[in-house]
Amino acid sequence: MSTSFTMIGGEGPNSYRDHSKYQGALVVASKEKINEAISTKLDIDITSNLVNIADFGCSSGPNTFTAVQTLLDAVENKYKKESNIEGIEFQVFFNDSSNNDFNTLFKTLPPARRYFAAGVPGSFFGRVLPINSLHLGVSAYSLHFVSKIPKEIKDRDSPVWNKDIHCSGSSKEVAKLYLDQYKIDVGSFLNARAQELVSGGLLLLLGSCRPNGVQMFETVEGMMIDFIGASLNEIANQGLIDQQKLDTFKLPIYAPQADELKQIIEDNGCFTVEVFEKISHAMGEFPLDPEFLTVSFKVTVGGSVASLFGQDAMEKTYELVKEKTQEMLPQIAKAKPGMQYLIVLRRN
Amino acid sequence: MSTSFTMIGGEGPNSYRDHSKYQGALVVASKEKINEAISTKLDIDITSNLVNIADFGCSSGPNTFTAVQTLLDAVENKYKKESNIEGIEFQVFFNDSSNNDFNTLFKTLPPARRYFAAGVPGSFFGRVLPINSLHLGVSAYSLHFVSKIPKEIKDRDSPVWNKDIHCSGSSKEVAKLYLDQYKIDVGSFLNARAQELVSGGLLLLLGSCRPNGVQMFETVEGMMIDFIGASLNEIANQGLIDQQKLDTFKLPIYAPQADELKQIIEDNGCFTVEVFEKISHAMGEFPLDPEFLTVSFKVTVGGSVASLFGQDAMEKTYELVKEKTQEMLPQIAKAKPGMQYLIVLRRN
Repeated sequence: MSTSFTMIGGEGPNSYRDHSKYQGALVVASKEKINEAISTKLDIDITSNLVNIADFGCSSGPNTFTAVQTLLDAVENKYKKESNIEGIEFQVFFNDSSNNDFNTLFKTLPPARRYFAAGVPGSFFGRVLPINSLHLGVSAYSLHFVSKIPKEIKDRDSPVWNKDIHCSGSSKEVAKLYLDQYKIDVGSFLNARAQELVSGGLLLLLGSCRPNGVQMFETVEGMMIDFIGASLNEIANQGLIDQQKLDTFKLPIYAPQADELKQIIEDNGCFTVEVFEKISHAMGEFPLDPEFLTVSFKVTVGGSVASLFGQDAMEKTYELVKEKTQEMLPQIAKAKPGMQYLIVLRRN
Repeated sequence: MSTSFTMIGGEGPNSYRDHSKYQGALVVASKEKINEAISTKLDIDITSNLVNIADFGCSSGPNTFTAVQTLLDAVENKYKKESNIEGIEFQVFFNDSSNNDFNTLFKTLPPARRYFAAGVPGSFFGRVLPINSLHLGVSAYSLHFVSKIPKEIKDRDSPVWNKDIHCSGSSKEVAKLYLDQYKIDVGSFLNARAQELVSGGLLLLLGSCRPNGVQMFETVEGMMIDFIGASLNEIANQGLIDQQKLDTFKLPIYAPQADELKQIIEDNGCFTVEVFEKISHAMGEFPLDPEFLTVSFKVTVGGSVASLFGQDAMEKTYELVKEKTQEMLPQIAKAKPGMQYLIVLRRN
């Protein structure tokens, strides 16, 4: 059984589109470093006149358009002195799970784009593009979950059964099982990209991880997950949802520590790490706003809660999470910040 | 202003998915001829280990899956003796307007497919794929309309204003204006495909046209369009829709005569006509069933009627069309059959 999060598409104040501007800020803040990496590290043959770019985990936009345009501009800038630059065409592949809202993505494509757009449905833990067909890949805020919850963690009779919905406050054994699964998943992701990318092609990863030594429960995300768990427990105590079902409901969210992520990449062996940097940007990590933080829950986890416990239970949980967030705001303010990263990998 | 028809997606008895099985039958009936054409006429370099296939006007499935699988099987069969056949990968591009229901298309992709799937949104009257990137293209039942209604036809003050919603029963001048636009559109389609296809690549066209000498109003489609026009006139007379709006509402449907279509291809000059054949198949052209014929209206034209005159007017029109179809069944039975065609073009 694989678990995946599909962001809620469409428009409006509670939509991914509105919410995701904080993620978009990271691409903008990384622009110069991306330009530099592409200028100095990308090493591809452009005599075929075609440059293929892909975004893995594109969601329904609009951040993906900013990301791929940033890459495209950088490639054009790099090769602008080459004689055949006028003839070069770009094809951009927007990849996400087949549950993603591709209809919205396609309807909101920038009208003046200078590339041929294609949507690619499928899990990025496996191959989604032909071998040696890709020159540049990007993936933003998409490597923050595990593809499945390790089964021992869900099993009430197992010694490592995790009572909480997350590894946040739990034992080292539970945390290790999460990390083990995360290693498998990111390893699969990197293996697939290694086959798709041409030698000399680049893979850019943007997202947030934990600084070394920081535990999940010390971060805003960890705290929010704890509020979700506590809220679900409350409504289970009120008999509104099934306690046994809740006992086995775990969130597949996982943010690795920086060194863990780096180690996984090095162990894979198909890429050279050209850039592994902390990026600071004006919008910061999360605004200290209960409404925003609670909407984060609704956008990322609400769908899973609703499908398992029903829409009413999700709305009730949402209200409780909002209350707790409001109450605990002083503690949230003291949370340890995550690390926004830009990683540039060069296919060996 | 361009006009396009997007088929109604989804499932159910009135959906394109159910309705389109009559179109799917043409692909099945053409299978041997397609195999033969690919076996003897396709002339591409497969040393890159990648074969790109595209369906232009794919709709939301499932006929497109049958069509592309037929092409893929034929290519594998042709090259099965080559030493690198095991390493060859296929990428299939499903193209349709950005209003198409790609979400349904992606969710219903055959799970055991042997190709990488990509959706390509955009009008096929222009380029949608990179230059020289395509080996095999197919387009089924998608060249039956004009991209816009010639403006003189819609203008009440023009000497060639067409009182009817279609050229069916009208003057030679009106029919010529439709054909002129059709020539422009199919010319644009062929020019775009000529750029996308590699030399030696094939473009397969399946659909229905009129046999030479047959007029629109003599065919089942022409009769059905006349019923739609008469029904809309009736509800305009009852004051349910605006007569002036109706005066300028024309359908962009156009089926050329076989020789007209052939001439357009020859005038384009980028392709060699390898096959231009009438295909007969067991399901025939249309079943003589008022329900089926009326649903044809709903699927292809209903959306346009609803968006211009409202859902109620569309349903009312639908009822009237059904009545007329029932009444006129003996006349419909005597309609001149259209010609189901398979055309195989080889990029020069």
